[in-house]
Amino acid sequence: MRIVVDAMGGDNAPEEIVKGCILARDEYNINIILSGREEEIKKILDKNTLSNKNIDILDAEEVITNEDKPVLALRRKKNSSLVKALNAVKNNEADAIVSAGSTGALLSGGLLIIGRIEGIERPALATLLPTMNGRFSMLIDSGANVDSKPEFLYDFAIMGNIYMQNVMGINSPQIALANIGSEKGKGNKLTVETYELLQNSILPLNFIGNIEAREILQGKADIIVCDGFVGNIILKSLEGTVSEVMAGIKQELNSSIITKIGGMLIKSSLRNFKKKFDYKEIGGAPLLGVKAPVIKAHGSSNDIAIKNAIRQAKVIYEGNINNLIEESIMRRWSENVWKIERSYFR
Amino acid sequence: MRIVVDAMGGDNAPEEIVKGCILARDEYNINIILSGREEEIKKILDKNTLSNKNIDILDAEEVITNEDKPVLALRRKKNSSLVKALNAVKNNEADAIVSAGSTGALLSGGLLIIGRIEGIERPALATLLPTMNGRFSMLIDSGANVDSKPEFLYDFAIMGNIYMQNVMGINSPQIALANIGSEKGKGNKLTVETYELLQNSILPLNFIGNIEAREILQGKADIIVCDGFVGNIILKSLEGTVSEVMAGIKQELNSSIITKIGGMLIKSSLRNFKKKFDYKEIGGAPLLGVKAPVIKAHGSSNDIAIKNAIRQAKVIYEGNINNLIEESIMRRWSENVWKIERSYFR
Repeated sequence: MRIVVDAMGGDNAPEEIVKGCILARDEYNINIILSGREEEIKKILDKNTLSNKNIDILDAEEVITNEDKPVLALRRKKNSSLVKALNAVKNNEADAIVSAGSTGALLSGGLLIIGRIEGIERPALATLLPTMNGRFSMLIDSGANVDSKPEFLYDFAIMGNIYMQNVMGINSPQIALANIGSEKGKGNKLTVETYELLQNSILPLNFIGNIEAREILQGKADIIVCDGFVGNIILKSLEGTVSEVMAGIKQELNSSIITKIGGMLIKSSLRNFKKKFDYKEIGGAPLLGVKAPVIKAHGSSNDIAIKNAIRQAKVIYEGNINNLIEESIMRRWSENVWKIERSYFR
Repeated sequence: MRIVVDAMGGDNAPEEIVKGCILARDEYNINIILSGREEEIKKILDKNTLSNKNIDILDAEEVITNEDKPVLALRRKKNSSLVKALNAVKNNEADAIVSAGSTGALLSGGLLIIGRIEGIERPALATLLPTMNGRFSMLIDSGANVDSKPEFLYDFAIMGNIYMQNVMGINSPQIALANIGSEKGKGNKLTVETYELLQNSILPLNFIGNIEAREILQGKADIIVCDGFVGNIILKSLEGTVSEVMAGIKQELNSSIITKIGGMLIKSSLRNFKKKFDYKEIGGAPLLGVKAPVIKAHGSSNDIAIKNAIRQAKVIYEGNINNLIEESIMRRWSENVWKIERSYFR
């Protein structure tokens, strides 16, 4: 298979991106297309590998940054590494795309250039959160859609379910709805209506009810369904709090000689703990609901993170995840129609 | 002044609640009315104080629990400690109310029994979050309203501003809007429209723009404005993450003899750090926008927390915070009308 990687996106681009692609090629036996400034990419390749076998370069002069307005940038920067990479997928020159650059531009590009799977109204960004019990919870949507409707969240649950079953190997993923209370009937209009849809799902979903934000890190659910605004708030709250708490404890450890010595002794513990929240091992966040695998790698990805994001794209492609999503959504629509007809003729 | 306290609300009721009231009476020279089961309250009073001076009991047989549906419970449990306390405020037998019981019931009761300040459409729960720089950020609304309109959030900012100026002594509080991006134009419909209102405020507000959830603990804003659903998600995410991270680190410290010794040496540091997030020193969360001071104390409040919540009620009352809110809201309405008229005759 052929995976196109945006060589210019991310804090450590292009160096770490290119190195990650070399690792992925060596480990997974796939073809990589690097999109970006040819001269720069070539230099990094020459420095880091003896052979450019199975690595092609798609020359692109421009770069879309986080400061660019996503949709405008897609339209104006036609020669950017990202737009060229997206077009490569669209034109069937690549099977999947990975980028550590602007999230907004990648999401918009996935939607506008690659296009939605038939039946899916809103693709969703699915972030895998590490939890305290050493597992992962998928937070879907973690930022692609704001002002969602209940039907969108229902589709997010269906897509997440397929991903967790087929990519993460979880037999019957527990699906929870992010909410501000545990009982049915709690929350805002969106969550109250979504609860009904999930509870009465036509497709088999292991819906376990509401989950409060304080329980998320405990790993009580495999899939946490929410609107993208709320999901992004949860994601950033968790990230920010973990890093602030770690920094705060470190600061306290400097307060006396005794605590400094203690701090030295527990260094390994703190490091082990921090590792639990290391996004680099996870790969990236897939944008589910578009016609080809689209992986958003973390902005500060190093070579290992890029390699893992590429692996993810490969698993989604080879597992036919998008076909499974399309089938499920079709089934949901047709059974829905049948249900309406049945109630009509009763 | 006279403060009525729900003696039966909270995990440690009635023992810690009554003890907190004794502390407050001794320290602040105020009258306390304890609402709840007279026999039980009397026993605790007898055990903990020599004199019942300035402490009255309002006998109430029933108790509203967290399992009760708030509005239904208010209607059905007329003889509950909470409903009797709320009615005491309504009938001008008390000037303020404190409860560590069901949040939903207290909020609904504040709205339905005590009533809104004229001009305020939606009262809001204002939680003071401790931040890493040793200060507090007010999160308003942290759970009273879901499905808010931009005008509600604008009122939250006005009320929060008055509170932080007059109760917390901050000259020109920095007001930020909780959002999923820093630039203007980011977010959902609600935040985009609220941004406009706050930026073009008729009343002088020190609006500093959007704040992302990851920055909240850094203490970058004095007031964080948001819808109650989002505010509750933020609050619970922070609480949950802090406690999960502390528990996770403790677990790691048990992994070897060396880290165990290190753990013993840094015990004081961890304790100091945890203290930063101790709600007991803060008091409770005021429900702003109702006609009398209503303080929601933390569910697991001990005597100190209750004493501090009573102090808060006293400061709001003596600082005439509710009058200041009413004046500001009136000014906002009248200047708004004037603005509309001016544009009409232009």
